[in-house]
Amino acid sequence: MHVYLDNNATTMVDPAVTEAMIPFFSEIYGNPNSLHRYGTASHPAITKAINQMYKAINASDNDDIIFTSCATESNNWVLKSVWVDKILNGDKNHIVTTEVEHPSVLSTCRFLEEQGVKVTYLPVNDQGIVEAHTLRSFITDKTALVSVMWANNETGMIFPIKEMGQICKERGVLFHTDAVQAVGKIPVDLQNVHVDFMSMSAHKFHGPKGIGALYIRNSEALTPLLHGGEHMGGRRSGTLNVPYIVGMGKAIELATQNIEEKMALIRAKRDRLEDALLAQLEDVFTVGSRENRTPNTILISIRGVEGEGMLWDLNNALIGASTGSACASEDLEANTVMLAIGADHELAHTGIRLSLSRFTTDAEVDYVIESFTKAVARLRAISSSYAKVQPTPGGKAAECNIHH
Amino acid sequence: MHVYLDNNATTMVDPAVTEAMIPFFSEIYGNPNSLHRYGTASHPAITKAINQMYKAINASDNDDIIFTSCATESNNWVLKSVWVDKILNGDKNHIVTTEVEHPSVLSTCRFLEEQGVKVTYLPVNDQGIVEAHTLRSFITDKTALVSVMWANNETGMIFPIKEMGQICKERGVLFHTDAVQAVGKIPVDLQNVHVDFMSMSAHKFHGPKGIGALYIRNSEALTPLLHGGEHMGGRRSGTLNVPYIVGMGKAIELATQNIEEKMALIRAKRDRLEDALLAQLEDVFTVGSRENRTPNTILISIRGVEGEGMLWDLNNALIGASTGSACASEDLEANTVMLAIGADHELAHTGIRLSLSRFTTDAEVDYVIESFTKAVARLRAISSSYAKVQPTPGGKAAECNIHH
Ligand SMILES: Cc1ncc(COP(=O)(O)O)c(C=O)c1O
Ligand SMILES: Cc1ncc(COP(=O)(O)O)c(C=O)c1O
Repeated sequence: MHVYLDNNATTMVDPAVTEAMIPFFSEIYGNPNSLHRYGTASHPAITKAINQMYKAINASDNDDIIFTSCATESNNWVLKSVWVDKILNGDKNHIVTTEVEHPSVLSTCRFLEEQGVKVTYLPVNDQGIVEAHTLRSFITDKTALVSVMWANNETGMIFPIKEMGQICKERGVLFHTDAVQAVGKIPVDLQNVHVDFMSMSAHKFHGPKGIGALYIRNSEALTPLLHGGEHMGGRRSGTLNVPYIVGMGKAIELATQNIEEKMALIRAKRDRLEDALLAQLEDVFTVGSRENRTPNTILISIRGVEGEGMLWDLNNALIGASTGSACASEDLEANTVMLAIGADHELAHTGIRLSLSRFTTDAEVDYVIESFTKAVARLRAISSSYAKVQPTPGGKAAECNIHH
Repeated sequence: MHVYLDNNATTMVDPAVTEAMIPFFSEIYGNPNSLHRYGTASHPAITKAINQMYKAINASDNDDIIFTSCATESNNWVLKSVWVDKILNGDKNHIVTTEVEHPSVLSTCRFLEEQGVKVTYLPVNDQGIVEAHTLRSFITDKTALVSVMWANNETGMIFPIKEMGQICKERGVLFHTDAVQAVGKIPVDLQNVHVDFMSMSAHKFHGPKGIGALYIRNSEALTPLLHGGEHMGGRRSGTLNVPYIVGMGKAIELATQNIEEKMALIRAKRDRLEDALLAQLEDVFTVGSRENRTPNTILISIRGVEGEGMLWDLNNALIGASTGSACASEDLEANTVMLAIGADHELAHTGIRLSLSRFTTDAEVDYVIESFTKAVARLRAISSSYAKVQPTPGGKAAECNIHH
């Protein structure tokens, strides 16, 4: 049985999305900026996709939603343009973010530090999130931007975006959230939460890889990252990627329609999987409380078992999982979020992320429970480090202060 | 009969390219950075596409070819990163480009001027190109970069890139060329020409819209425009757009294989169309000598006939054409290249660009000749300005100093 449980890295394009995109390659192929019928033929489909985007996140007519090539572009755009607008050409010098952002935020911040920008990296608590009150004390008169993710890619933990947005609004500081792991997984309602900029990526909710978007509240000014031919009102140039725009619209609609019901179905499978692994295995723990986690994600640590070894065994069983961020997975690095929440280096190498999707079946869950426990048994039998730590009297992982 | 003659704006995705991409949406969908079989399944196809790219432009193993989301991104990347690397953090202050670059270069240069960078815009001659010797006198010790397009999008005129590359090499200045309108239309051999950076875009040669590339000679250092998760050796982050990478590789292979033969076929149709229009219409001229033009392009000026009026009539005849750059075509602006080569404002509003592709048929050419001449007759009959200029004694457009 093939089981793909790496949906936080990327997802299968929903076959209905693929189908919606196909006519826009070799049939309706004009440049939407052209005046002739071959150009305008795609306008209804583009308009529909834009409407699907607005509806999915409950944006208002005054807001902009600009298509980009990925969330990495959206994140770079916000950070670098705030640098140009408010720091290079303004009187600010400071950006606030967190220790556990995606590399597209963290590497950009490191670049900005090289350019003389001061960056504060807020620490996370033992749940892997930043508490809202932590933010308050770090904002200064020189702060140009606060950038905090809505949900973390490795743990699925959900950050207090509503409270943080309120704090930024009170302090008159621009607020950006990387909502890549939130949109399509939990309700995102921008009438209910104050964010100025929000990054999204289609391939995390069964759309194609290579298209993202940036939501901009009230069409706030922001120097383009891609200057050029006045596409999308001059905010982001480059010939429009019509098939993927159509695909992203369709995908976000499918992912967010009746999201509460879809969440409940995924959550039930996730909980069953998590319960079974915690019940059947000794010395394992999962990161972060389930209530405050995206309903598809488990980050589980298996004492004495290297993440890469587990991945290998799971892969042999045709199961796709991850040790954390897909971007870093070629590096065989420790899980950065686990380090941030206080795990020691050895433990941080034992994390396995299982991320489900609406296409995950009950039969797949059963198969994963069986294969996972087998793999743990095999690897612990040959592990030199596991022999040293004996099962804790008093129960599974009872001593682990990062188990909840 | 439907006739699409706006291939310099964008092209139909070759059905063979669409077919090559489809499996990578809903079947082979893993993130290529993931270690499991769902991630690695796409590696052979990505490797193949990269090889197709290297072969098509005859790049060497030491060079980098980095996929981007469009040529607009490639152009912004080079200009803005040279700004950061050599001007903000170096001792240069100057960039040289031309008056007739694509907006993705020109708007970026205007942005850089706002940041204090000095930009020289080289003037074009009456053929619409910059002569190589013009460049020499504008390079100073403070020049960080020269950026000149290989072929112009509105006229198809080919610039002396080999000579300019040589000048830049001698002077130790980085040389970038926007080759969007050259690749797939004329032979591009990077062993024969010295360029440090070269921008490409798949949708100009029957690949998909929303993927481009940047060639980087000898892996020259260049700060990323998109920082993040270390994709493509850390040079350009964002989850790889596997279907489009596969599609761009396939498309560049199809476009550049036996390019001389393909050029000859397109050139024959283009020349037949151009000859017929020049023979059958009075007071028309085409811009630039054919020998030095991409073989698919005609920019024709029809005295007394507004370009938009012509577009409208052609559109009614199911023919897609353009008044120039698709990016600007919603603006109803004068053709900027025609202004640059010295046409007056009225004349610059009369340009119509016809751009063929390898899918253009002889029957289509016949149909366009007929429809085009009919439209000119109709529009001139109702034109107030045309009445004033009478057919020139001595032949068609004989007085026009920009006719060759
Ligand atoms: C939280 C988060 N932000 C940003 C990204 C980057 O998205 P993209 O691949 O569209 O650039 C990812 C996933 O890769 C992510 O999980
Ligand atoms: C010369 C030239 N450069 C750059 C571009 C921009 O390409 P893209 O649409 O891939 O950003 C175009 C076409 O739009 C072009 O003709």
